Amino acid sequence: MDARKILLVIFDGLGDRPLTELGHKTPLEATPKPNLDWFASNGVNGLVDPIAPGVAAGSDTSHLALFGYDPKEVYTGRGPFEAAGVGIDMEPGDIAFRGNFASVDEDLKLTDRRAGRIREGTEELAKALDGLKLGRIKANVREGTEHRVAVVLRGRGLSPKVTDTDPHEIGETIQESKPLESAARVTAKAVNAFTQQSYKILKAHPVNRARVAKGEPPANAIVLRGAGIFPDLVPITERFHLTAAGIAGVALIRGMFRTFGMDVIDVRGATGGLDTDMIAKADAAMDALRTHDLVVLHVKAPDLCGHDGKASEKIRVIERMDAMMGHLKAMLSTEVVVALTADHSTPVALKDHSGDPVPLTIFGEGVRVDDVLNFDERSMAHGALGRLRGTDVMNVLLNASNRMEKYGA
Amino acid sequence: MDARKILLVIFDGLGDRPLTELGHKTPLEATPKPNLDWFASNGVNGLVDPIAPGVAAGSDTSHLALFGYDPKEVYTGRGPFEAAGVGIDMEPGDIAFRGNFASVDEDLKLTDRRAGRIREGTEELAKALDGLKLGRIKANVREGTEHRVAVVLRGRGLSPKVTDTDPHEIGETIQESKPLESAARVTAKAVNAFTQQSYKILKAHPVNRARVAKGEPPANAIVLRGAGIFPDLVPITERFHLTAAGIAGVALIRGMFRTFGMDVIDVRGATGGLDTDMIAKADAAMDALRTHDLVVLHVKAPDLCGHDGKASEKIRVIERMDAMMGHLKAMLSTEVVVALTADHSTPVALKDHSGDPVPLTIFGEGVRVDDVLNFDERSMAHGALGRLRGTDVMNVLLNASNRMEKYGA
Repeated sequence: MDARKILLVIFDGLGDRPLTELGHKTPLEATPKPNLDWFASNGVNGLVDPIAPGVAAGSDTSHLALFGYDPKEVYTGRGPFEAAGVGIDMEPGDIAFRGNFASVDEDLKLTDRRAGRIREGTEELAKALDGLKLGRIKANVREGTEHRVAVVLRGRGLSPKVTDTDPHEIGETIQESKPLESAARVTAKAVNAFTQQSYKILKAHPVNRARVAKGEPPANAIVLRGAGIFPDLVPITERFHLTAAGIAGVALIRGMFRTFGMDVIDVRGATGGLDTDMIAKADAAMDALRTHDLVVLHVKAPDLCGHDGKASEKIRVIERMDAMMGHLKAMLSTEVVVALTADHSTPVALKDHSGDPVPLTIFGEGVRVDDVLNFDERSMAHGALGRLRGTDVMNVLLNASNRMEKYGA
Repeated sequence: MDARKILLVIFDGLGDRPLTELGHKTPLEATPKPNLDWFASNGVNGLVDPIAPGVAAGSDTSHLALFGYDPKEVYTGRGPFEAAGVGIDMEPGDIAFRGNFASVDEDLKLTDRRAGRIREGTEELAKALDGLKLGRIKANVREGTEHRVAVVLRGRGLSPKVTDTDPHEIGETIQESKPLESAARVTAKAVNAFTQQSYKILKAHPVNRARVAKGEPPANAIVLRGAGIFPDLVPITERFHLTAAGIAGVALIRGMFRTFGMDVIDVRGATGGLDTDMIAKADAAMDALRTHDLVVLHVKAPDLCGHDGKASEKIRVIERMDAMMGHLKAMLSTEVVVALTADHSTPVALKDHSGDPVPLTIFGEGVRVDDVLNFDERSMAHGALGRLRGTDVMNVLLNASNRMEKYGA
């Protein structure tokens, strides 16, 4: 039988817990969602522990696992994926940090951790710092959305085992980065040099002079956190012998897709926010399926509602997700296997990620069907897939799409 | 959301197999138990393999796993936990044995393996041996219940890889301990010196002179088995950032709790036997929840019925466990997450531990609920927790009580 194409839809933070206000149902259980239920009814279902039962996964560790990389082997921190997400071409051995443009006084004391949530001019500010030499180490700097910025150190003998410079609290001085192992001394020294030199350059930059003139807090410093080494991952295209594309609004996920060796497709209206254009993303996914074997469609919105603690928002997002799946359903051919899942649970009541497992539905011509009728947490417990680990998912998809290579003979 | 407290109830050896005399039901399935069923109906359920499917766990290895320690990494033998259970303060590197006071003739041939199940005088006998010097090795000796005794060797360069001295059979001579690796020579030599010196001291002890005068078998020797090295475990209090207390009647479990870094609470009437006062233990657990984040309530009784092969006894014990849970239920606040499980199965028909999985129910405000209605082996197979390993349980409890720290970002 011929290999099929795979459309993997990842609803970020979709899993939830029962809420009193919803009659002890989860948002998924409480929302009419005929299209999502159609996929569950006509597919095979189960629950996935992204890392292991009970373990609350970050978006980074969970995406690594879902694409078949063991986070315990390759994960050191979020920085590298954020950096890849804003378009820095990383190399194995690079050390990347997540950063903020911040406002500090002359003693480097924090006066605004997000430089007044600066929106304009960060591109010029990042450019003024990009390529900065810190001894034998070079810093690559690229702006993210709003006040966010990625800083990548490149050079010999770098280590991610250094402390953050971000003091987090207003009134605190930018921290000196300290090595957590002797091999990290060079890195800590470069980080501290970056703090000093970037302050000098940013303080004098026209963008900041203009901000001060207008009474706005200057983006005159960068505070760093989440150091991680860029892992030397074998691309999924190579590991699974397929072509792959990803659609996502948020930089972190785009960066992870790029790191996994996927083509990242830009979609007009895909914001990574609640205002994202899900129909446009679905259309782009259908387009991408013409040219790619695996297309991943990532929707950030449910996670945002979970973090905000808003059940009614999450329900509205689920309704829109359902409409998106209805839109996709009408366009599907039997050539495509569809998988619906989440990267982790973000319960409204918790306002953060939890270790509760997430639904997984796989639908496609010839795929086994079980007795599950609804795409929700409670129903999935009866699915024929049982309870899987995140690192099982890619294998299950390869199998469902007739792409699994025999282990043994 | 705030972190919750955790009450973990461990019913020792509760899991069982269907019995013809019970209409092909297990004791749990055959017993009306409205309170246990109430927790199952209102909670999330599953089956736990303490070690792995089919593997029959000891109480020591299963408790290690349930508290998140991998027995394959830390377990060498039961001795260290027995010794901790009778109150010997152990240090990493100590080698501990389980022992019996026994009766031997002048050739050290066993005449009674339990010294006539001696009940009185063992405290003085142990004291006469405690602190014994065996070259550069010191022996700590503490009496257990009845004929039982714990012997701990302390000193440099000890190894648990030595053979037992307990010959098990009447008429056999106390065995010479042999090193099973070259690094164990010092240990074997110390063990053999202990056999000789303790015989000399015990033979002459007033307690034994009095026993001989009364025609009772003297407790004139100690036979040793189950050598194990005291593992260097990171306390659960440190690993999981919580305060923890344990309630148990049996020395082994008390010793394990202490080894895990838990406060061990004494309860009047908690005997570790069938006569144990379960209500008093439940009250003590509720008290302990005021001052501790995690309280573990261990009930030995179902295991005893399993070992004795008595289904009717096990049913009566389950009725009393159910009454205990009803008593607890009435006192619970929404602040507490309750988990009910067993450390292993001890089927009545087998009279020993088996590798059948055990029930697990987790109940608490906000915890996902599944469709299971009864707390028994057959019903649990449909639970949303699926089939977990013992080492998953603590993570699942941390998640249910909002104490799980995110892995990744």
